[in-house]
Amino acid sequence: MLIHTIDEVREHVKKWKKEGLSVGLVPTMGALHDGHKSLIVNSVEKCDKTVVSVFVNPIQFCPGEDLDKYPRTLEEDNNLCENAGVDIVFAPSPKEMYGEGHILSNDFLTYVIPPYFYVDKLCGKSRVGHFDGVCTVVNKLFNIVQPDFAFFGQKDAQQLIIIKKMVNDLNIPVEIVACPIVREKSGLALSSRNKYLSCTEKEEAVVLSKILFNIKACYNTGIVDIEALKDTAYSLLNENHDLEYLEFRDENDLSEKEKADENTRVFIALKIGNVRLIDNISLKH
Amino acid sequence: MLIHTIDEVREHVKKWKKEGLSVGLVPTMGALHDGHKSLIVNSVEKCDKTVVSVFVNPIQFCPGEDLDKYPRTLEEDNNLCENAGVDIVFAPSPKEMYGEGHILSNDFLTYVIPPYFYVDKLCGKSRVGHFDGVCTVVNKLFNIVQPDFAFFGQKDAQQLIIIKKMVNDLNIPVEIVACPIVREKSGLALSSRNKYLSCTEKEEAVVLSKILFNIKACYNTGIVDIEALKDTAYSLLNENHDLEYLEFRDENDLSEKEKADENTRVFIALKIGNVRLIDNISLKH
Repeated sequence: MLIHTIDEVREHVKKWKKEGLSVGLVPTMGALHDGHKSLIVNSVEKCDKTVVSVFVNPIQFCPGEDLDKYPRTLEEDNNLCENAGVDIVFAPSPKEMYGEGHILSNDFLTYVIPPYFYVDKLCGKSRVGHFDGVCTVVNKLFNIVQPDFAFFGQKDAQQLIIIKKMVNDLNIPVEIVACPIVREKSGLALSSRNKYLSCTEKEEAVVLSKILFNIKACYNTGIVDIEALKDTAYSLLNENHDLEYLEFRDENDLSEKEKADENTRVFIALKIGNVRLIDNISLKH
Repeated sequence: MLIHTIDEVREHVKKWKKEGLSVGLVPTMGALHDGHKSLIVNSVEKCDKTVVSVFVNPIQFCPGEDLDKYPRTLEEDNNLCENAGVDIVFAPSPKEMYGEGHILSNDFLTYVIPPYFYVDKLCGKSRVGHFDGVCTVVNKLFNIVQPDFAFFGQKDAQQLIIIKKMVNDLNIPVEIVACPIVREKSGLALSSRNKYLSCTEKEEAVVLSKILFNIKACYNTGIVDIEALKDTAYSLLNENHDLEYLEFRDENDLSEKEKADENTRVFIALKIGNVRLIDNISLKH
């Protein structure tokens, strides 16, 4: 069932709760692919009722980013959800989420702000304010849907860690379920932004996962020196790859690692043409 | 019933909700007086169950403020609550609320930040970060208790307006109930900080309400010019009164008024000795 208003969602959820049913939320920006689908499948399996939100959240886009051209495919998204057993697809307008007539800035809007230590690195470094927008909208969606469980992909690992931190810090009564990255056969992590890639670029994009798999393989042979592990990556890069970062950080609090270990996650971001792609891998056995 | 842990509160509330009972929350910093009592009475009357939180929230005190010497009177507070029919007094430790071992700053803690437009004036101007701490802890308390109604006093009018804004912006499923200021016979608004006043200072402190009542009386005779209304105040001040602000602002969004009208609230803050006191009045008929 496709729903556009907050009131309607609340009405349904209220009824479910009265019946003692558990509710799962899968927050998305639409343009659903098999990565989202795995989140949805997880929720449908675990919860009595599943809500998928489809909302391209303006306040998490930074100046110069792709807000206007971000892919919007609501009809297909809705079909995918219905076939997967989703109970409600919640697709509000920006006006429904943020009201009308005021500027979407911290001058006039209450924000939920993740700790600086978690956002001054990795994607947060180049995407200033991005995670403020993410935390704020996820907080709103939690308050609207009041789910028992919410499902997020490991693909956006920094986001996942920040949201877990928010839930803990603000005592939000939601359990966060992390779901593994879904990849194409080539290794390329699924992403709505892959739609921007040409065929050749898509082949070039395989380098992200190649680098990560390579690093993990080397780590598994016993190499823990991070510079040595990074060196294995550089040989795979060519002039079409504009590396933004390749970093080894703690799985839980994003602090920098001195040596690779079981709690290390390796994060990579690079640009191919105009398309910025990210990927990551845990070094856990 | 006096409870110190989040888990225990949640357990009780969960049971109540299952029984379909409504829950009211009265968030306080303790040192309860008749002002708090009126909030409690309102909640007990309106809701099936009432939780009073007693927590001197460290993150809403600014450097140099009275965190350490803020009055703590838990036993008396608990008695007052029990006599008033409160079901749970929730008095967590700072550790229970914020965990242990990390610094309470926006480097390591997720904050809820009210819009700049609402905090760059009145008390927010001198108490930098104060309302960030208030919004964050109130958000946490809402997530812990999940009340249907929460009761706040008009005494802290800027706080009340900011919390209403937060609830609206973040779609928090709580109805905010505003309760009128409770005053001594002299006119002095009740405040936990009145305990800091000597007898003479307490007499001096009557000037805040005198100024406000005077302004309202003048407004009621038809004067809407704000400078003229302010002038009526200055004659009441003496060298013992250190005026911080006297301002005419919109009741809902705190914007500055050009002329006094029905939607105007008059805000005053002044120091008597070392004690900073605030008061306010609506000009509505």
